[in-house]
Amino acid sequence: VTGRAHGCIFLLTDYGQIDEFVGVTKAVLARLAPGASLIDISHEVPAFDVRAGALTLERSAPHLGPGVIVGVVDPGVATARRPIALETRSDNGPRHLVGPDNGLLMRAVERLGGLKKAVVLARAAVPGADAQSTFDGRDLFAPAAAALWSGTDLDELGEPIDRDSLVELEAPALVVGRGRIESEVLWIDRFGNVQLSAGPDDIDRAGLTGALRLTVTRDSAPVEIRRVKAFAELNEQEVGLIVDANGHLALVGNGSSAALTLGLAPRRRVILGAMP
Amino acid sequence: VTGRAHGCIFLLTDYGQIDEFVGVTKAVLARLAPGASLIDISHEVPAFDVRAGALTLERSAPHLGPGVIVGVVDPGVATARRPIALETRSDNGPRHLVGPDNGLLMRAVERLGGLKKAVVLARAAVPGADAQSTFDGRDLFAPAAAALWSGTDLDELGEPIDRDSLVELEAPALVVGRGRIESEVLWIDRFGNVQLSAGPDDIDRAGLTGALRLTVTRDSAPVEIRRVKAFAELNEQEVGLIVDANGHLALVGNGSSAALTLGLAPRRRVILGAMP
Amino acid sequence: VTGRAHGCIFLLTDYGQIDEFVGVTKAVLARLAPGASLIDISHEVPAFDVRAGALTLERSAPHLGPGVIVGVVDPGVATARRPIALETRSDNGPRHLVGPDNGLLMRAVERLGGLKKAVVLARAAVPGADAQSTFDGRDLFAPAAAALWSGTDLDELGEPIDRDSLVELEAPALVVGRGRIESEVLWIDRFGNVQLSAGPDDIDRAGLTGALRLTVTRDSAPVEIRRVKAFAELNEQEVGLIVDANGHLALVGNGSSAALTLGLAPRRRVILGAMP
Repeated sequence: VTGRAHGCIFLLTDYGQIDEFVGVTKAVLARLAPGASLIDISHEVPAFDVRAGALTLERSAPHLGPGVIVGVVDPGVATARRPIALETRSDNGPRHLVGPDNGLLMRAVERLGGLKKAVVLARAAVPGADAQSTFDGRDLFAPAAAALWSGTDLDELGEPIDRDSLVELEAPALVVGRGRIESEVLWIDRFGNVQLSAGPDDIDRAGLTGALRLTVTRDSAPVEIRRVKAFAELNEQEVGLIVDANGHLALVGNGSSAALTLGLAPRRRVILGAMP
Repeated sequence: VTGRAHGCIFLLTDYGQIDEFVGVTKAVLARLAPGASLIDISHEVPAFDVRAGALTLERSAPHLGPGVIVGVVDPGVATARRPIALETRSDNGPRHLVGPDNGLLMRAVERLGGLKKAVVLARAAVPGADAQSTFDGRDLFAPAAAALWSGTDLDELGEPIDRDSLVELEAPALVVGRGRIESEVLWIDRFGNVQLSAGPDDIDRAGLTGALRLTVTRDSAPVEIRRVKAFAELNEQEVGLIVDANGHLALVGNGSSAALTLGLAPRRRVILGAMP
Repeated sequence: VTGRAHGCIFLLTDYGQIDEFVGVTKAVLARLAPGASLIDISHEVPAFDVRAGALTLERSAPHLGPGVIVGVVDPGVATARRPIALETRSDNGPRHLVGPDNGLLMRAVERLGGLKKAVVLARAAVPGADAQSTFDGRDLFAPAAAALWSGTDLDELGEPIDRDSLVELEAPALVVGRGRIESEVLWIDRFGNVQLSAGPDDIDRAGLTGALRLTVTRDSAPVEIRRVKAFAELNEQEVGLIVDANGHLALVGNGSSAALTLGLAPRRRVILGAMP
């Protein structure tokens, strides 16, 4: 042990909140890292949806402050997929992340200054880990996070591995052409706001000025959308385009769900172009 | 800074628990107010339902103890609606509340001894606030709450405003006449209990004694209801009237939902009268 | 007061997370037991389902560490059912449990080394309790838990009662015969995994070796199931049998819900036998 207790332990899982999975994982953390603040990012990632979890962690990372992230969306639990711990180059955000090697953690790592070191967790090397268990969130990742929070060096928890060997998810689709942006729906939030993979700079890169038109499918008629700064600038049932609080373009309504109005879901493609 | 860290920070929002909105807001609080206990009142206020949020805060206020309340149900975010911080006269409950000036906080303030001071939050004056952001919960209200929890004077966070300028919600309907109480449904809880705007004193004021009859609509036949002290005094599917844990009259069942039995929802009106 | 502040306070209720019930209960705990870590086991126990709550507490108990458990699934609130506090013989798990005398707490007590002492809570003896209230979670159990966490002796909170007088739930069904195990469905988790009352030793006791067949009802054809160690060993839509993270046998799928595939729900019976 070379460091000292520092920051919070942040949790993101697909465990839901009906079963006791989150509770017992937090109980292990409270026992092995007494005094740590435990902050739930979300436990309602759709079951097994690694991509949705990775995007949620990426959006959250810049706002978390110092500490350790435990991420568990893990369809490969109890298979040969590697349990990993990562160290970032962040000065003021989470220094460590713990979870499965399936891409879940990597987009957040990029937001946290990039990767400094990575290890495969060795069950025998993690204090409090249970070598027989198949519940890695409770019995491996939580103990590893508690050790890191308490100041244990990453190297003490397993063997180093190469950056290139880590599993990465495919990047979200985004094609910016002259007068045309083809973009993927990343996320639909509780209010029906539709976050796109495109950002405000992409509008400039595409040379789009003035009113925009949005095409949702090849068959549907394009819709005119206005760029606005506040939901309240929109009329009822109108869909507008804002820069959201994460710096992405988002399709939004004013007290109505843009996702419902447009019939959109995550991973769908939309095209932004100029009004004729 | 004139005070010192004190009590909890209590959160009430309509953010839901699927997205990371609550998590990043709490992460900001944990970073700016290290050591504060963060207590979730509820994050499942129906989206944009300021009235439901205000009633939930009002019910909760007397039980919270010292600290700061962050309340965010905010359909007007990113418009001219004012972000405010309030100081109450409470000795043993929350001293400060932070949120939008849309009536959300005012009923709780009355339960906390009334208003002592109010300010409009100045983004530039709140340490850690983000002047560009449209996510006020994370980037304005949480930093303001952290500052107040840490002992910053209300005056340091913005310009004072008059009590009379603060937005108030319409009071729930309640008309007490001779032998007749017309009352509004304030809240239906998870168990289907139906809280009314009337209290037990209103029964005395109306001169009602003995068995009561309840009329839900003009068209439906009145139902006889008994006043009881415990759910268990009721027969299966019977609806009774109790004084609930918040001091209101409530229509309840015994292991069944009174709301379902009677077909009631928030804001509906019911009439209590005497059995003929 | 003879002890000192120790461990966490763990909460399990059927309050849900839409209303403020959990929030105000935790606010009372934070006020009366400042510094205690409050860990939610679950608040989504089906309303009034004492058995589901008792099984959840039993599964959680071995993983919780030192502290006090507050359990509230309480269809008999405000009746003559007794409010109780229990002391366990556990060295490294929760020492105390507080809740209604309806069987909710007893299975967890057995997992925590068995019962050492029990008292009926006397409202007048519990600091901070409200004698008039019908919201026992907030106004009796939380104050009692705070007192125990702070080191108050169990004896100071009420009169001792006999072990034999405590309400117990019926044990889950399990009949192990020669080549046949009749078992009850205890729990279906978020991923559709079906936990059985049987454990791996029961397979040996029944003399079952090799492939197993599962019969769900008298009318349905038996299904062959393989014993596996990881979900990933199964084909799509195949159901397998694992030893779950709580040491029970469980029917599971690979990215699919075994409960949906088999049409199972809690309390249903299934029969495990040998393939002919």
